[in-house]
Amino acid sequence: MEIRVVRSVREKNRELAHDVRQHLRERRSVMFNFMSSPGSGKTTLIEKLVPLLQQRGYNPAIIEGDVTTAIDAERLNHLNVPISLINTEKFGGSCHLGPNVILGALETLSSDSFDVVLIENVGNLICPASYDTGSNENFVLVSVTEGEEKPLKYPVVFKRTTASLITKVDLVEPLGFDIGALRRNVLSVNPDHRIFELSSRTEAGLQSFADFLDERLKTYVAAL
Amino acid sequence: MEIRVVRSVREKNRELAHDVRQHLRERRSVMFNFMSSPGSGKTTLIEKLVPLLQQRGYNPAIIEGDVTTAIDAERLNHLNVPISLINTEKFGGSCHLGPNVILGALETLSSDSFDVVLIENVGNLICPASYDTGSNENFVLVSVTEGEEKPLKYPVVFKRTTASLITKVDLVEPLGFDIGALRRNVLSVNPDHRIFELSSRTEAGLQSFADFLDERLKTYVAAL
Repeated sequence: MEIRVVRSVREKNRELAHDVRQHLRERRSVMFNFMSSPGSGKTTLIEKLVPLLQQRGYNPAIIEGDVTTAIDAERLNHLNVPISLINTEKFGGSCHLGPNVILGALETLSSDSFDVVLIENVGNLICPASYDTGSNENFVLVSVTEGEEKPLKYPVVFKRTTASLITKVDLVEPLGFDIGALRRNVLSVNPDHRIFELSSRTEAGLQSFADFLDERLKTYVAAL
Repeated sequence: MEIRVVRSVREKNRELAHDVRQHLRERRSVMFNFMSSPGSGKTTLIEKLVPLLQQRGYNPAIIEGDVTTAIDAERLNHLNVPISLINTEKFGGSCHLGPNVILGALETLSSDSFDVVLIENVGNLICPASYDTGSNENFVLVSVTEGEEKPLKYPVVFKRTTASLITKVDLVEPLGFDIGALRRNVLSVNPDHRIFELSSRTEAGLQSFADFLDERLKTYVAAL
């Protein structure tokens, strides 16, 4: 008689996230995962962060997650850094990046040189938050066009990230957006959250967020 | 020997969507399903549509889908129409409304009087598009703050809906948004799509969209 041990998806994912971390340690690299709704500004933020990280002495690579198309990867191509594009429709139209596809993406970057990987997760505020990609740290973007109550309605992603990046703050005035209410809602869901107010258009806040990443990177690199 | 027939989830959902349609026919009601990213303006649009449908002689009810919280349902409470709130976290934190939960929601409305049901689906541009809720017609909202390329990146929801509702068009100018590019992208994915340009703030386009719904409702009611 054959006894089959069916491992849970959760357990399998935990092992794969561990493999991702092991892979990153071997490459002496750190990985940051950026999550948000579609259109919150993930691609543009990454486009702006890459040169700021380069100025601080790092060699970034990008993992670009989309259900379909290479639009975002092509937008980032001019940065001349290694990019691995994941189209999740090839994995069943999935609405998130799991550690399995991240491991595959890291393997496509095996001949490239980098020390920090920025993941642009699939545009979705729900599913990606439930998957450990093996990243060292996770960030959520929320644009001021999305409404002050988003942290209350989508608490999981705010609980499982270390900082909220409030994007498109140049639109606060034309929108009559209450940024204080958004901040209070973020902190009511996760009192430890760091909050950055950013505008990729005016570049407000970008240097200070890059400084924050620099600090975090130094801590992680020291622990490698 | 017992033979178990394991039905696929897909098949089960097809049957449940059929049950929803049957239930609606018995109640001589029509159902419209609104899908979009978080923050595209679904709640506000529904808030504006209810009185416009009432002016046209209909009795709307609302099914309000959220992962968690009653925030949106409470925002709509002042309309004094029947509302059924679905918190999908009670069904495993699901990122969409399936026909099973819609059937449950319709049952909570069994003692209410209505002839048109508006579904506010969970804020998500990916998963809801893959589930037949049993609605007569499906609509996708895309706000001008989300970027011109959204139909190319999330084609499924544009293929499985009959009209695109471009929301927040009052922000076209401050954003420098290219609405022509968005329209072209919608039509490249679904050449039959109707496109409405709406602003819940200035009320632009709302009467003409309500007229469109009125026409559709007359067609469906005639076929009941």
